[in-house]
Amino acid sequence: MTNFTKEVMHVGEMASGAALTVPVYRIKGETGGRSVYIQANMHGAEVQGNAVIFQLLELLREIKVNGDITLVPYANPVGCNHKNGEYTLGRFDPITGVNWNRMYHFDADIIKPFVRKSIGQDDKTIEQNFKALMINSIEKKLDHNNYGLTTGQRIAYQLQRLAHQADIVLDLHTGPISSKHLYCPEYAQESASYFDIPHTLLIPNDFAGALDEATFCPWWQLQEAFAELGINFSISAEHLNKESFTVELGSQEQIDLDVALEDAKSILSYLSYKGVIDSNDFQPQSMTRYACYLKDYKAYYSPMGGMVDYLAEFGEPLAPGEPLARILRMDNYGDGEPLHYLSLEEPVIPILHFASASVNQGTELYKVFANYFTL
Amino acid sequence: MTNFTKEVMHVGEMASGAALTVPVYRIKGETGGRSVYIQANMHGAEVQGNAVIFQLLELLREIKVNGDITLVPYANPVGCNHKNGEYTLGRFDPITGVNWNRMYHFDADIIKPFVRKSIGQDDKTIEQNFKALMINSIEKKLDHNNYGLTTGQRIAYQLQRLAHQADIVLDLHTGPISSKHLYCPEYAQESASYFDIPHTLLIPNDFAGALDEATFCPWWQLQEAFAELGINFSISAEHLNKESFTVELGSQEQIDLDVALEDAKSILSYLSYKGVIDSNDFQPQSMTRYACYLKDYKAYYSPMGGMVDYLAEFGEPLAPGEPLARILRMDNYGDGEPLHYLSLEEPVIPILHFASASVNQGTELYKVFANYFTL
Amino acid sequence: MTNFTKEVMHVGEMASGAALTVPVYRIKGETGGRSVYIQANMHGAEVQGNAVIFQLLELLREIKVNGDITLVPYANPVGCNHKNGEYTLGRFDPITGVNWNRMYHFDADIIKPFVRKSIGQDDKTIEQNFKALMINSIEKKLDHNNYGLTTGQRIAYQLQRLAHQADIVLDLHTGPISSKHLYCPEYAQESASYFDIPHTLLIPNDFAGALDEATFCPWWQLQEAFAELGINFSISAEHLNKESFTVELGSQEQIDLDVALEDAKSILSYLSYKGVIDSNDFQPQSMTRYACYLKDYKAYYSPMGGMVDYLAEFGEPLAPGEPLARILRMDNYGDGEPLHYLSLEEPVIPILHFASASVNQGTELYKVFANYFTL
Amino acid sequence: MTNFTKEVMHVGEMASGAALTVPVYRIKGETGGRSVYIQANMHGAEVQGNAVIFQLLELLREIKVNGDITLVPYANPVGCNHKNGEYTLGRFDPITGVNWNRMYHFDADIIKPFVRKSIGQDDKTIEQNFKALMINSIEKKLDHNNYGLTTGQRIAYQLQRLAHQADIVLDLHTGPISSKHLYCPEYAQESASYFDIPHTLLIPNDFAGALDEATFCPWWQLQEAFAELGINFSISAEHLNKESFTVELGSQEQIDLDVALEDAKSILSYLSYKGVIDSNDFQPQSMTRYACYLKDYKAYYSPMGGMVDYLAEFGEPLAPGEPLARILRMDNYGDGEPLHYLSLEEPVIPILHFASASVNQGTELYKVFANYFTL
Repeated sequence: MTNFTKEVMHVGEMASGAALTVPVYRIKGETGGRSVYIQANMHGAEVQGNAVIFQLLELLREIKVNGDITLVPYANPVGCNHKNGEYTLGRFDPITGVNWNRMYHFDADIIKPFVRKSIGQDDKTIEQNFKALMINSIEKKLDHNNYGLTTGQRIAYQLQRLAHQADIVLDLHTGPISSKHLYCPEYAQESASYFDIPHTLLIPNDFAGALDEATFCPWWQLQEAFAELGINFSISAEHLNKESFTVELGSQEQIDLDVALEDAKSILSYLSYKGVIDSNDFQPQSMTRYACYLKDYKAYYSPMGGMVDYLAEFGEPLAPGEPLARILRMDNYGDGEPLHYLSLEEPVIPILHFASASVNQGTELYKVFANYFTL
Repeated sequence: MTNFTKEVMHVGEMASGAALTVPVYRIKGETGGRSVYIQANMHGAEVQGNAVIFQLLELLREIKVNGDITLVPYANPVGCNHKNGEYTLGRFDPITGVNWNRMYHFDADIIKPFVRKSIGQDDKTIEQNFKALMINSIEKKLDHNNYGLTTGQRIAYQLQRLAHQADIVLDLHTGPISSKHLYCPEYAQESASYFDIPHTLLIPNDFAGALDEATFCPWWQLQEAFAELGINFSISAEHLNKESFTVELGSQEQIDLDVALEDAKSILSYLSYKGVIDSNDFQPQSMTRYACYLKDYKAYYSPMGGMVDYLAEFGEPLAPGEPLARILRMDNYGDGEPLHYLSLEEPVIPILHFASASVNQGTELYKVFANYFTL
Repeated sequence: MTNFTKEVMHVGEMASGAALTVPVYRIKGETGGRSVYIQANMHGAEVQGNAVIFQLLELLREIKVNGDITLVPYANPVGCNHKNGEYTLGRFDPITGVNWNRMYHFDADIIKPFVRKSIGQDDKTIEQNFKALMINSIEKKLDHNNYGLTTGQRIAYQLQRLAHQADIVLDLHTGPISSKHLYCPEYAQESASYFDIPHTLLIPNDFAGALDEATFCPWWQLQEAFAELGINFSISAEHLNKESFTVELGSQEQIDLDVALEDAKSILSYLSYKGVIDSNDFQPQSMTRYACYLKDYKAYYSPMGGMVDYLAEFGEPLAPGEPLARILRMDNYGDGEPLHYLSLEEPVIPILHFASASVNQGTELYKVFANYFTL
Repeated sequence: MTNFTKEVMHVGEMASGAALTVPVYRIKGETGGRSVYIQANMHGAEVQGNAVIFQLLELLREIKVNGDITLVPYANPVGCNHKNGEYTLGRFDPITGVNWNRMYHFDADIIKPFVRKSIGQDDKTIEQNFKALMINSIEKKLDHNNYGLTTGQRIAYQLQRLAHQADIVLDLHTGPISSKHLYCPEYAQESASYFDIPHTLLIPNDFAGALDEATFCPWWQLQEAFAELGINFSISAEHLNKESFTVELGSQEQIDLDVALEDAKSILSYLSYKGVIDSNDFQPQSMTRYACYLKDYKAYYSPMGGMVDYLAEFGEPLAPGEPLARILRMDNYGDGEPLHYLSLEEPVIPILHFASASVNQGTELYKVFANYFTL
């Protein structure tokens, strides 16, 4: 029976003084294998990940766990409690509009000085020192400073401090109305096949504030900086095995505990492949896994205002000219065009679409894979 | 080929001076049968009715129309354009919180004086005078007065002025995440069977500000006031045939033009039964139609905060003790109860549930029929 | 030195399980005089009352207190923490639109049966029984029932349970951008002169869900029901001394601790007049105190959309035709009227105006006293 | 008498098909001096600029105008109409959270190729070609492309297309609750003294999406690119005279036409100094004008949740340790610290503060000048 400990992290205060807290569950690995950090619900409406963490905790009780696993549901106590109408306004801080998943920290200027100081050291030492450097840079951010931290930074940095202590990071999100898809750093493409997720986005070594980037970019840029000096320091699966993913579990505003069980098993199939757990019960399902590079993951903005009847199936290739959606314009009936069919000029795979039928001109209607291929 | 005219009604102005307009489509009846007023989207997120009006306009081109039909999509240009995050905050005026469908007008004090003045008159004259009285009371409301009208009243009254000119009123709405259901005045129960809607709410003669009430309560209270004087003045199907319904077309934030075609045919089956159109192409589908009285239409408020996995199927009787939903409390894992199953103590039919998994303690989780019966 | 106790009342839970709590401060009266209940911030943006409660607690330390005083800041932990942009969306439940100050309970049907049962009893017994009846009716509401309570009811009823235990209730609110004004039941007009508030609204015996009404209407209707039977049961200042007020402390979204000290002294001048405290330090300031009846408290809705330059001074009589405000319409410059001056056709005293320059047609622009007189 | 033309620019459509339009007023210069583009209200709640444009149009009727002047009030028809509660949620797109003033375009990669092609050309030719290049790059953005534009880009680019046609750009904004302050590119410091604005922020040559940057960075980087090749191409006041400012006119959510007249005269004093108008009536007022560099313009985030009593006066130097504000924590009365005084450790000038008393831990409380100096 695998045990876990529970801690409640204090990440802020509301106007009434109400504490903002986040539950942190930790499983101590038995053999010190690769460690894992999994969080869910940093975007307030994207809640399925909480159900997945529930199923993971339930399953892990009966599994031999080698590396430490830290699980953090309700990662954003402001976002997940903020309602406008029935819905959770959870993608950005309602006061500032800043996207909750763009508040993490990474200062690339720490890389080169660190590399110079680490020349000649063995990988293990480099790994420990670099992990300590990153944790320390977050501590400094969190330290009392005269001008303080934003609400979101105080949450993000405390989560990031936990994430930096792990080798593998899974940030559980969902789309608006969406198929399952995985953001995977290009170098970790192989791992994508161990998730039961039919769509993989291969992302480059660019940091834009998200948690996955904040935890793989430093290692990836460290590897590149050593390579520039002709030194082979590898974070690949065969070596230090540093990987971070954003796991998009489907649509927002809903949880399904049965589907969450499947999602949990999909994650355990990956953790099993990584040696974090000892179990043969969790194998990746056989499925067609499509992928594309981030530059080919295209947002399609509505060419007009209107009410959208979303037609295209997720996950199925859509040929050029095939209807993606149709837009109803009941202000045009009788003296204009009341119904408009929208299609694209290249083959794509629709991945997600806007969460409401009502769109303004310029609203992000669909996100699609262009130039896709199968893994 | 049935023609229609189009008019654009000016119902207000935004802060930038932008005009608030509503499109009004009118079909002139050939034989002067019962007239119909159909509007959609008074609640901003409830948009499927716009697609139904599109399909009605398309179908009616090829149908002989006896009574005048007025169709008004986008009835609420403030509500249907108000976005918070991806969703449309459309149930209430975002400035005041007042429900858009509670702003119509009916002053019951006009009934008794009118009845006294109408004693001895024939039904036709009474009908014309009473229709004129109601339209005039709205005109007075709309007239310039020193202290003005609220934004919502200016929209509601101009729609109500159109509605009062008809004998039959259909206000097309949807629920949050919902099955199809019909609000039907008790006296018009028979008509409910002509809609392909499996759930009917039989509502009493109480005015609370909604459009259906604003257009059937006056006639129903007029009938009762005459009856108190022993005079038989009947609004029933066999006589003046005054009926108003709120038609709940399913869930909000989505349109489906194919389903809208079915919805349109369902409405035409009712209009055919009412003689508004001459057509044998539109018959009610055979289905089990459940009903209950408004007093038995119960809201179930969440006993706790949490993330809800909605389990109960809509439209299927749910036995006492059977799980309605389960609530995940990931703040309780390890030292409390992380999963709670919710059930009720009487047989019910779940009709709709909240549009988000995230609920506070006291959020309206489900609406169910209790003490239901079949029509 | 007057001591106080502190208790934290649990009034609900958010989606993340975060507890909704309200701090309750109690001062035990030394001689059992009239007891007082004071709450603040039921409307989320109306926060000055919290500062007034702070100053009251500080002042009361040094005052001899006869009757029990209960003070509840942050009465609405959902409303006071709900931000949209920089502002607090605090007037209504953001999920349902229902005004937070319209959720209290009073069922007038309890009055007549109670009166019949109380005939012949002395006032003291009637008072105790009726207080118990009201507290019990709230307990029943709060009791677990199959279909639960709304989020707002669970907060309102627990506050109301405290309020019913007191003889005098002060509900501290503010306007949007507003002068100080007092909602005062007509029968308690004399007390209005003991507050340093220049505008008093004399309100009738109608319950519409607000806390002041929920706590004076029952006693006032009880008094009237006894009077119908020729029995003199009086709640007036000379007898049972039951009074409830909504105290509008100025504008929302701001606190000023120095002004709060003046507000606190104004309240203590009233409590001193009521014998709740023994002190000669708190006398009402001499000022012109205007009043009007609720029916003459008129909302003025904007005749057009536009940007408003609010001109009229609060608290000063404004003659007919004198500009109340001017509305800028920069969409009309050059081909329409860019600037419109608004005035009224009767003498009024402007009390409050809308909190933003940007208004839609029909936005509530001003609230004014018409037919005003001085107390 | 100076005339103007009026045009209505179509910048998008809402879900109901309602057109989003922006009024554009143009005054034709008589002698072809430096041209000016002035817009207001890109941030929805920042409306005083509309009143300033009204006063400018009124004043300019009686002034000889040399260069073309284009004036655009209500620049953002989505932002200025979006209400949550009484307030205008206007700083960011309510659907995406993206700041409306971060959607302009500038691709620095166009500079070096252009410089290489322009070697040997005279300043006038370079200026015309570069202006055409920038306008063309916006045209391309606006051109129909398969994947469309966001709602905000479609508005921003059409405004930017107008702005690029001018030499001088004034983007009229306000702060939340704020003193008047001017964002001024470092090279144009001298101009700052011609505005009656007591606080100037000297900003560097970094583009982050705002309109002022989008219109001065290209010219400034062009000047620097030529300088790298030893070619003197100057945008300074004595030469091509290219300047762009963000003019912060005070606080949001309010207009004051009398103050707007002063603001207009302040702008005309600057335009007079620039030779855009011939008039001696508009001279800068004598006042102490403080300035600091953008790097010293510091945001101070609240160290705790609570209700803030803002104390520090705007525009007055505040010594270290002097109270900036005090925070009330009524949840702590009796068993914690209910009142906290906040101060900073360096001399600053408070410029603006948050628009509400209610703040979360980490809410941006104040913005202050550190290391300030006088112009």
